[in-house]
Amino acid sequence: MAFDEPVYSDEPTRVGKLVSDFFRGQSGADMGVGGLDVLLSMGADARDDCAVYEIGSPVTLVVGSDYIRGPKFVLYEMGFLSDFDIGYYLAAANISDIAAMGATPIGLLSVIRYPHELDDAGFRQIMAGIHQACTDFGTLNVGGDIGNAERLILSGTALGVCRPGKVLKRSGARPGDLLCVTGACGLLGAAVAYFPKRESFSPRKLPADAEQKLLDSWRKPRARVAEGRVLSEKPYATSCQDTSDGLKATIEQIMQASGVGFRVTERDVPIDPAVRMVAELMKVEPLALTMSASSDFQLAFTVAADDLVACRAEFTAMGLDFFVIGEATDEGQAQVVSDEGIQPLPGVAWKHQKSDISLLASGSSDA
Amino acid sequence: MAFDEPVYSDEPTRVGKLVSDFFRGQSGADMGVGGLDVLLSMGADARDDCAVYEIGSPVTLVVGSDYIRGPKFVLYEMGFLSDFDIGYYLAAANISDIAAMGATPIGLLSVIRYPHELDDAGFRQIMAGIHQACTDFGTLNVGGDIGNAERLILSGTALGVCRPGKVLKRSGARPGDLLCVTGACGLLGAAVAYFPKRESFSPRKLPADAEQKLLDSWRKPRARVAEGRVLSEKPYATSCQDTSDGLKATIEQIMQASGVGFRVTERDVPIDPAVRMVAELMKVEPLALTMSASSDFQLAFTVAADDLVACRAEFTAMGLDFFVIGEATDEGQAQVVSDEGIQPLPGVAWKHQKSDISLLASGSSDA
Repeated sequence: MAFDEPVYSDEPTRVGKLVSDFFRGQSGADMGVGGLDVLLSMGADARDDCAVYEIGSPVTLVVGSDYIRGPKFVLYEMGFLSDFDIGYYLAAANISDIAAMGATPIGLLSVIRYPHELDDAGFRQIMAGIHQACTDFGTLNVGGDIGNAERLILSGTALGVCRPGKVLKRSGARPGDLLCVTGACGLLGAAVAYFPKRESFSPRKLPADAEQKLLDSWRKPRARVAEGRVLSEKPYATSCQDTSDGLKATIEQIMQASGVGFRVTERDVPIDPAVRMVAELMKVEPLALTMSASSDFQLAFTVAADDLVACRAEFTAMGLDFFVIGEATDEGQAQVVSDEGIQPLPGVAWKHQKSDISLLASGSSDA
Repeated sequence: MAFDEPVYSDEPTRVGKLVSDFFRGQSGADMGVGGLDVLLSMGADARDDCAVYEIGSPVTLVVGSDYIRGPKFVLYEMGFLSDFDIGYYLAAANISDIAAMGATPIGLLSVIRYPHELDDAGFRQIMAGIHQACTDFGTLNVGGDIGNAERLILSGTALGVCRPGKVLKRSGARPGDLLCVTGACGLLGAAVAYFPKRESFSPRKLPADAEQKLLDSWRKPRARVAEGRVLSEKPYATSCQDTSDGLKATIEQIMQASGVGFRVTERDVPIDPAVRMVAELMKVEPLALTMSASSDFQLAFTVAADDLVACRAEFTAMGLDFFVIGEATDEGQAQVVSDEGIQPLPGVAWKHQKSDISLLASGSSDA
């Protein structure tokens, strides 16, 4: 439903008024893209039961939900992330799933319930973060649910569209295809590994700019909408997924969905200097930390080797970039090639309710 | 995202396997209705980032989110509702918002996070309830988010379609239009008022069949999909909303959105005998209890007086029914006409985080 303001229902009325300026003038917005005919006829400002879209031409509609308030928000609880930041992150996380399918977002529904400990200004900041992210990613927060709860709840649903038949799937990678990623992974996981133990590393803490980079990975995550759109509109990608479970988990999921294996070349994997520094402090392999559970939003995708040059030209023309980090095999395993030979892909995949990164330090490369 | 089963991420894998049979064979389902061309090309069984629909003809798409785990689940916490029941209710609540817009549901995304206190069998029962409700309302649970959390989280997003331009809005009622409701309201609110105080009413408890009726209102709520579809396809309704905030709040919201007033005729308002009995036990007016905060899913709508016979004929032809309970005025107030004259509409509207019904007993008719 849209954000209601029932006449005599004081709490929803009150919280609705706190944020109504974020929704003003939505209804009537043209959400079409690339010749697709999509109109938001009733946005959150229409204050009805639901948001309404008029879809005038054949489209592929993509929709997914993501709940993000969980143990990974330790940085929020420690005060490193603001209310605005977690709102921004919620929107980015949901829009990332749309981008991973090659679709362009046409709207976000957000479910924000908050406890009495969070004051109205905090709630408004969460909604401001969502609003800013939607603006940055070219879409609108068209409704959802707001109100109180015993604890903070952050959940969302994003909708997107692409041309019929142009959705990007996890399945489709073929042996010989090149494995690509839009950027360095592991920053968000490294931040979660580092900041709770920050004082224990003293005086060998990270330089201020490295700390800033780790925090910015959470504060301004970028859903790869432009990259997803290029991969959808051009015929090169054979599979695609976002890296929100960590790069290792992503590679293994594409592997399983496509029925292939992957061989990653260690020296080709981009590793952010801040991740490398955290790995050194933690005494773990930088590649393992880069591959491990980390809810960042790069896209991992595959292209046929013959299409690499053409695909890169399309990215370059849009000011975008990607890295080739390996290739698909017919061996059904995820491996890494390094100076030490061929080994299983290192890293620890995301698990809910557990601090996984710590497993790395104890030498376990798997769960 | 679809319900993931990442290779090394044991908790999502495990909980995903618990419920995978609910999603088998979804992809490829024809979700079209009434000549609208809608195909679910990738359901939860496709295990990708999102569900995907191919929309081949112009449609109006309707989408809304509802978080339902809140204080109104006191009956669950007291053991009167099962895990299955709350799953069923979650789906019905979200689909009701779609029905209120005159749309036919094409899918539900559910967000279910549960604490360690709820065992796997309980989680599976929640998902079974969602599955059953989706089946009963002619749609599919196409994905969402599952996993653990510190406490039970139940949220959802429903999608629906109708013919372009045929969406039902809260606005549109005109003075002279008749106010209608698809059935008796207040059962769910009466149940919440009654059961926590049940022992204090002893030995004057309700008869067993009345208690059963109150519980069944929660256990098998009916989203009014068929009624909403008739109202969308035929040109009679001038406004429509579901009664999930209570009948009084619903009337006032239509009133505000349409810029009219309403005069309800007391003797025409259907009151369930079980609600009447609870009102007597509580020493409140039955009309007030029927009108008060109660998250049931009737539809309240308006029709021009000249269209009443034709509208009723359409309902009757489908085996459906409704009650005319009043008419729209140009006075901008919600009033009730009874033997005692014209008075403000009684009842207490829904407020989050508060036991509102108790206000009735203390004589307050408003907050």
